Amino acid sequence: MSYSLGNLPSFEQIRDAAARIAPHARVTPVLRSDALDALSGAELHFKCENLQRGGAFKFRGACNAVWALSDAQAAHGVVTHSSGNHGNALAMAAATRGIAAHVVVPEGAVRAKIEAIERAGAILHRCAPTQLAREAMTAEVQRATGGVLVHPYADTQVMAGQGTVVLELLQQAPGLDALITPVGGGGLASGAAIAAHAINPSLSLFGAEPLGADDAAQSLAHGSRVTTVVPDTLCDGLRALVGERNLDALRAHHVDVITVSDAETIAAMQLLWSELKQVVEVSSATVLAAILKRRERFAGRRVGVVLTGGNVDLQALPW
Amino acid sequence: MSYSLGNLPSFEQIRDAAARIAPHARVTPVLRSDALDALSGAELHFKCENLQRGGAFKFRGACNAVWALSDAQAAHGVVTHSSGNHGNALAMAAATRGIAAHVVVPEGAVRAKIEAIERAGAILHRCAPTQLAREAMTAEVQRATGGVLVHPYADTQVMAGQGTVVLELLQQAPGLDALITPVGGGGLASGAAIAAHAINPSLSLFGAEPLGADDAAQSLAHGSRVTTVVPDTLCDGLRALVGERNLDALRAHHVDVITVSDAETIAAMQLLWSELKQVVEVSSATVLAAILKRRERFAGRRVGVVLTGGNVDLQALPW
Repeated sequence: MSYSLGNLPSFEQIRDAAARIAPHARVTPVLRSDALDALSGAELHFKCENLQRGGAFKFRGACNAVWALSDAQAAHGVVTHSSGNHGNALAMAAATRGIAAHVVVPEGAVRAKIEAIERAGAILHRCAPTQLAREAMTAEVQRATGGVLVHPYADTQVMAGQGTVVLELLQQAPGLDALITPVGGGGLASGAAIAAHAINPSLSLFGAEPLGADDAAQSLAHGSRVTTVVPDTLCDGLRALVGERNLDALRAHHVDVITVSDAETIAAMQLLWSELKQVVEVSSATVLAAILKRRERFAGRRVGVVLTGGNVDLQALPW
Repeated sequence: MSYSLGNLPSFEQIRDAAARIAPHARVTPVLRSDALDALSGAELHFKCENLQRGGAFKFRGACNAVWALSDAQAAHGVVTHSSGNHGNALAMAAATRGIAAHVVVPEGAVRAKIEAIERAGAILHRCAPTQLAREAMTAEVQRATGGVLVHPYADTQVMAGQGTVVLELLQQAPGLDALITPVGGGGLASGAAIAAHAINPSLSLFGAEPLGADDAAQSLAHGSRVTTVVPDTLCDGLRALVGERNLDALRAHHVDVITVSDAETIAAMQLLWSELKQVVEVSSATVLAAILKRRERFAGRRVGVVLTGGNVDLQALPW
């Protein structure tokens, strides 16, 4: 078990995270597009976390988790079971502190991603491609090494780190009145909501979720966490079920989750390339798809739009 | 004939240009990459003009030329014969002033580029695909409309506008000791050289040129303008022969022009995507190719690297 799994971070923890990661993370640019403003009827400020170290916002959370450890905790390294951007981010973050990163990788995971995690210096532990095998192997690695589990989205310090995106964005683009992030496990959406409302309680908060993995939208509609959704979406970064505490934050901060089809998301991904000149992961394009699908909720507003990742295979674009 | 074809701009004209285009042009971000720093042994500061309006630095020069006109001159509109980024930039710039842009387009030019120019509001004039036909049609359009010719790189106000890239970069990344831009017609390279040395006379200046269109390198080596080069390169933005005055500026400012093969440039273009997450035009990647080819000239230095354009067809990548 992680020392901090489960509790939502306070705003102070998010500000501490910003100071902690400042020597390691990049201040990512905010880009604008006249054409996308015209299409949406809104003023869109795109926070380009696809240009964060490792190509995704995940570095913020992982870096904060790694540097929040005491020296005694850190000595045993960190452990996770993500073969996606979080695994890579944790490996890079561990390297900044010179500690070991153990990443549990299921057989069959994308080879290029695994190679990137290995290049970043992590120690790989392979397991069968089932949730049970992953958890068993993770527990075994924790026992064997004494390493600290850094969960991809349910860890307090991870959520605090992701919240720093919003601290930065609100400094770079003052006067925003709405904010939208993708919703997967909810690490970013919850950290962002806490940071946003601490700074400006009147900010309208939105989430974007694939129709084929709409457990957060269903959970908010039903008033309790829906865990029966079987993800069926191209948005590989958003297939995780939203965490229990993450969902609490979405509910407490009245995050309006908009669902979009993969076709709508792919069209938005093309627009982000043609008009903003950014190639982002398909998961990242859900936010623009949501804005264009529900124009009436955004029209006339100044909207912060978080683009979460840019780790794309240009030879396998979804259009 | 343009009112200003031929003279190199002064530093004051470049500063005037910066003020003139400020309401219309974007302040583009400067990006960094640990991996590219490690590969080059230098500290690279990438000025992302691929994120300029219209997807290329060309908007700066075109915008300055359009707004430098008197009302009487502007009333007749502007004329050019570029079917590439300059034609598009001039159309966009003319639209900001509400004047006509006439663009002479040879039969056989890339359809997508022509459509973009038309979407930007230009009036197209088609001609046969020869230099003679282009010049004749351009002269005819000038006579018929009274419009002012805005040459893509030999126009004083265009060069002044391109020089603003460097004003901006040196504010964003203080302490640079070297600078590199691609060299085509030389509008950017000459404007950049004048601006750079006015601010810091000890800056080392470099140019990057495709081996298959190395007329600037040959001209500097031979001491006079070589006009016999028949361009043979994938770098479509760098096929123009360097202008007479542009060459004067390269010579006066001791710009060291490094030639690179298309294969070296394509490898650099891939690195700019994988490490910087920017898809740039092949012409734009010459600068990184040159740095990696002549590491000894850049190692240990803080280098400003101008990425010039991002109008790429993702379905037709050169690798």
